[in-house]
Amino acid sequence: MGKVGIIMGSDSDLPIMQEAIDILKSFNIETEVDIVSAHRTPEKLFDYATNAHTRGVSVIIAGAGGAAHLPGMVASMSQLPVIGVPVKSRNSIDGWDSVLSILQMPGGVPVATVALDGAKNAGILAAQILGSSDPEVLKNIISYKESLKEKVMTASKKMKQ
Amino acid sequence: MGKVGIIMGSDSDLPIMQEAIDILKSFNIETEVDIVSAHRTPEKLFDYATNAHTRGVSVIIAGAGGAAHLPGMVASMSQLPVIGVPVKSRNSIDGWDSVLSILQMPGGVPVATVALDGAKNAGILAAQILGSSDPEVLKNIISYKESLKEKVMTASKKMKQ
Amino acid sequence: MGKVGIIMGSDSDLPIMQEAIDILKSFNIETEVDIVSAHRTPEKLFDYATNAHTRGVSVIIAGAGGAAHLPGMVASMSQLPVIGVPVKSRNSIDGWDSVLSILQMPGGVPVATVALDGAKNAGILAAQILGSSDPEVLKNIISYKESLKEKVMTASKKMKQ
Amino acid sequence: MGKVGIIMGSDSDLPIMQEAIDILKSFNIETEVDIVSAHRTPEKLFDYATNAHTRGVSVIIAGAGGAAHLPGMVASMSQLPVIGVPVKSRNSIDGWDSVLSILQMPGGVPVATVALDGAKNAGILAAQILGSSDPEVLKNIISYKESLKEKVMTASKKMKQ
Amino acid sequence: MGKVGIIMGSDSDLPIMQEAIDILKSFNIETEVDIVSAHRTPEKLFDYATNAHTRGVSVIIAGAGGAAHLPGMVASMSQLPVIGVPVKSRNSIDGWDSVLSILQMPGGVPVATVALDGAKNAGILAAQILGSSDPEVLKNIISYKESLKEKVMTASKKMKQ
Amino acid sequence: MGKVGIIMGSDSDLPIMQEAIDILKSFNIETEVDIVSAHRTPEKLFDYATNAHTRGVSVIIAGAGGAAHLPGMVASMSQLPVIGVPVKSRNSIDGWDSVLSILQMPGGVPVATVALDGAKNAGILAAQILGSSDPEVLKNIISYKESLKEKVMTASKKMKQ
Amino acid sequence: MGKVGIIMGSDSDLPIMQEAIDILKSFNIETEVDIVSAHRTPEKLFDYATNAHTRGVSVIIAGAGGAAHLPGMVASMSQLPVIGVPVKSRNSIDGWDSVLSILQMPGGVPVATVALDGAKNAGILAAQILGSSDPEVLKNIISYKESLKEKVMTASKKMKQ
Amino acid sequence: MGKVGIIMGSDSDLPIMQEAIDILKSFNIETEVDIVSAHRTPEKLFDYATNAHTRGVSVIIAGAGGAAHLPGMVASMSQLPVIGVPVKSRNSIDGWDSVLSILQMPGGVPVATVALDGAKNAGILAAQILGSSDPEVLKNIISYKESLKEKVMTASKKMKQ
Repeated sequence: MGKVGIIMGSDSDLPIMQEAIDILKSFNIETEVDIVSAHRTPEKLFDYATNAHTRGVSVIIAGAGGAAHLPGMVASMSQLPVIGVPVKSRNSIDGWDSVLSILQMPGGVPVATVALDGAKNAGILAAQILGSSDPEVLKNIISYKESLKEKVMTASKKMKQ
Repeated sequence: MGKVGIIMGSDSDLPIMQEAIDILKSFNIETEVDIVSAHRTPEKLFDYATNAHTRGVSVIIAGAGGAAHLPGMVASMSQLPVIGVPVKSRNSIDGWDSVLSILQMPGGVPVATVALDGAKNAGILAAQILGSSDPEVLKNIISYKESLKEKVMTASKKMKQ
Repeated sequence: MGKVGIIMGSDSDLPIMQEAIDILKSFNIETEVDIVSAHRTPEKLFDYATNAHTRGVSVIIAGAGGAAHLPGMVASMSQLPVIGVPVKSRNSIDGWDSVLSILQMPGGVPVATVALDGAKNAGILAAQILGSSDPEVLKNIISYKESLKEKVMTASKKMKQ
Repeated sequence: MGKVGIIMGSDSDLPIMQEAIDILKSFNIETEVDIVSAHRTPEKLFDYATNAHTRGVSVIIAGAGGAAHLPGMVASMSQLPVIGVPVKSRNSIDGWDSVLSILQMPGGVPVATVALDGAKNAGILAAQILGSSDPEVLKNIISYKESLKEKVMTASKKMKQ
Repeated sequence: MGKVGIIMGSDSDLPIMQEAIDILKSFNIETEVDIVSAHRTPEKLFDYATNAHTRGVSVIIAGAGGAAHLPGMVASMSQLPVIGVPVKSRNSIDGWDSVLSILQMPGGVPVATVALDGAKNAGILAAQILGSSDPEVLKNIISYKESLKEKVMTASKKMKQ
Repeated sequence: MGKVGIIMGSDSDLPIMQEAIDILKSFNIETEVDIVSAHRTPEKLFDYATNAHTRGVSVIIAGAGGAAHLPGMVASMSQLPVIGVPVKSRNSIDGWDSVLSILQMPGGVPVATVALDGAKNAGILAAQILGSSDPEVLKNIISYKESLKEKVMTASKKMKQ
Repeated sequence: MGKVGIIMGSDSDLPIMQEAIDILKSFNIETEVDIVSAHRTPEKLFDYATNAHTRGVSVIIAGAGGAAHLPGMVASMSQLPVIGVPVKSRNSIDGWDSVLSILQMPGGVPVATVALDGAKNAGILAAQILGSSDPEVLKNIISYKESLKEKVMTASKKMKQ
Repeated sequence: MGKVGIIMGSDSDLPIMQEAIDILKSFNIETEVDIVSAHRTPEKLFDYATNAHTRGVSVIIAGAGGAAHLPGMVASMSQLPVIGVPVKSRNSIDGWDSVLSILQMPGGVPVATVALDGAKNAGILAAQILGSSDPEVLKNIISYKESLKEKVMTASKKMKQ
């Protein structure tokens, strides 16, 4: 089974992106975490995007805020599925810039976009992609979903009392 | 190799969703196309989402417009990765309703969202997911990306003349 | 006289939804409160929506945030009038996602949408629906409206002094 | 059984509002249709809102565009449930003004808002309100919903061929 | 010289609307302040709008938030110029609802709209209207504008030091 | 009685601004129409704004689109009340730029803003300002409002037949 | 004097970008036009951005639509000033995606953004940059501005007749 | 080498605009800082815009919030390149008004717009413009960009440990 590459544009994105790392760890999926700034380290971006698959990365999660070009640029150079996490960074206009500059990719170069600050869902989506060819991962996802249900059921019982 | 399930909320979404069907066909990936309306055929939705994986579907693409609940509801009941296509339908408010009601899923239930009317990219993303465990598909994606590049190169040459 | 079913997607919605419970209590209308998550407990959603009317529920109030599918999905399966409360939840994009994914339902499946975080108005609307066939409830609504007027009149007097 | 009062701010709203009239007619529910402009005929508005219930009207549907005050002002003076239809009129800013000036009512005075140009759903919602105390109407709604499902099923069959 | 009628939908609007009162006081213009809720006291609204001019009011300033119908409804019934102040109230969607439901009046019934929470400018505009036929007021406005300039000039000097 | 100065940023704004000219003509109010571009003829802007009142202009109506600086800049230099008409010009982003750059003036320099493309209302507002000290104009406004009401009443009768 | 590099993401952007070419030609400034797609030809992007200055390019104009990464990515790799033109492409959400993904660049990597579809202004801005060290270009800009003024003056005269 | 003129509409904009001053200082570029309010000191605006180039200013940076007319008005009267900084001021509607009233300039009068509150990038852009004819400045920009890269590299190393 491949690992999941998690990159972000700045270390200020880590508090959000940590949720992707944590949920993948809980599924026993290996991650490789790094900072790659599309605008400050373009050579590293090129290197990362063209080589990640050679290091055993199977899915890439890229988080960025504002004019967020990291996910789309990685997708333009990698053969791997890329999941984009729009981050509501400090100078973002309420998150709209992050969302639109990740989501609205042109035909030919998709980015699988999740909700604003939705890094946990990016992790789950990466697991589902790996799980489509790995029954062990799939089993973990199914029990995770079961646990979500149980939390709601418990909260429901508590509310009724 | 699994096939890709493509569903849409209404037959009026077909002109957009056809782009997903076509690109997958060009990759020699089998598709299973149907209309499933979250709001008009909720039982069919339930049945589709809980059983698709038993029929050999590996990835689901769901397109819908307006208050677009189809992708998210399928994701809530299926173990498969779900790709959502926001469709700019007739009564949509410029597409914002479709985009936000597909993208902004709560923690635990991701939908891999693509651009407004971005069905072609949904197809490519589905292929990339299958390609992460199928070298044949991967090869097709790589040559598709190569062909995109060549089209730009040709247009560039033409412009310079 | 029927009772009002009040459901919400998560217990974090309770502080908002409590306003619906309180105003209905003040009208002496019975309520039945529960957590039903469209995305985490889809089976419970199906069960709730198809059976609420058999337990004496006459109107359903459903509150949810983000990609808020609960009100629309309940409306798709219940014969009862459904009132939707868009909740401005933590990761919502300023509430726009909640509003649009509840309001913009397709033709055939209405949700009576109230203002963002407008649970009190959802309660009053439910009372008005019951009041359309129950003179006692109607009387309570009329005196409630009278009390609103009096509060303004008192504030007006105070301001003039 | 009461009838449904349908009013609109201008005769230019009729093409949209006709969908409410038609669907109610198909449910054998009596309608009373009129033009009441909040801004051009405020006395008529006052008269309509305070007296509609005395003429046997049980639910009011009010459609308007732009700074759409008709639904909210009727709701402020009538004891009946009021359904608001935001109309995307000629000078509206993409419909946002109509939607927000109908939806965002203050605490105490609800308007049951439907989608932009969603007059058909306003009619169905009115029928559901009447149906909550009239089994005949309820039966019609249930078969209407059944017919929606069948249309999807037929379209689905056609697509598969 | 007439006086300026200042009304607001709720006493919670007073902190904003006080800026209109203060600036008019500084111009020696008489004000008449009251709470008039379009939705909670519609009879008072009708009475206020149809009679204000008989009490010597020459211009009306109306402030309201959310689905803000007060300015437009007063304008529909009064012969006086009406200035609308969109207030960013607690449950407003970032102020957009207040702005659009005051600004986007239909042809025939203008409301002179100022910026979100722009009550001070509403006061100045009212003074300008009175000043168009009262040289004393006009003189005060001209010196007020002069004072604005001087404040900037002083700040400019300070910055350069 | 003063006249109304009507200016616009470009002759492409004339089809919209003509509605202000026509309604003022119907009230027998003299107008003075010109093109003044804030960005192309800044000296003319300066000259117009500082001198209009010396030529007997009592109210200024300024229409512009996109980054619409004309109304606000005239207001910064004239002692007269300035009415701003946001025009939805060819390259405008759905009119939002025009609306916000006219409406959101800073404290001290009001522009009385009307609806997007609302030139007719600008004309009526100008008439109301003149009418606040001219009984003849006031009488015309009152009969105009009466005529609006009658049109609705006629349309209402026609609809009922 | 350097030349201006004009690039665009797709040949479908040419009708808009032609306005930049034309205005620069009218200033006798040499241009070098090409198609460079950030997402389809990332290597070409890398090559273009790192080498343009070695070919005598002094300013770069980059136009793109949707999730428009071209201007920002060029800016990340070039030492030259980069002007970004948001293009309202076919699948853009009313141009907001293009505007925000070009404008909202992070600290350290500016893109000089012009209006939606504002290629003409991009050309003028490029000329102004060259003109800041080239008196000949500056003279042309000054006469261009003069010609804008004259057009308004002529239109003004015509309107007054 | 010319200096950079930095102006802002109010001293409340200084905390944001200081970032432009600081970065230019770090490049050893002379700045001239002042407050110029388009709306409160229009004569100073005219004087500043028409004369800045005679004092050795080569580039102007103008920051303003709300209906932000300062950058565009300076651009209309100066032959110099003008960089606009939209400031998210206290009464701004989430910054949209500042952004749109600076960005959406009509054809003929460009403003080089940077991100909301993006004063640092305005400073860098000004340096790039000067750098296009000054090798010393260019060298400083190149090492600044190098330093950005190194910060990311250091953060990357730290994260991996």
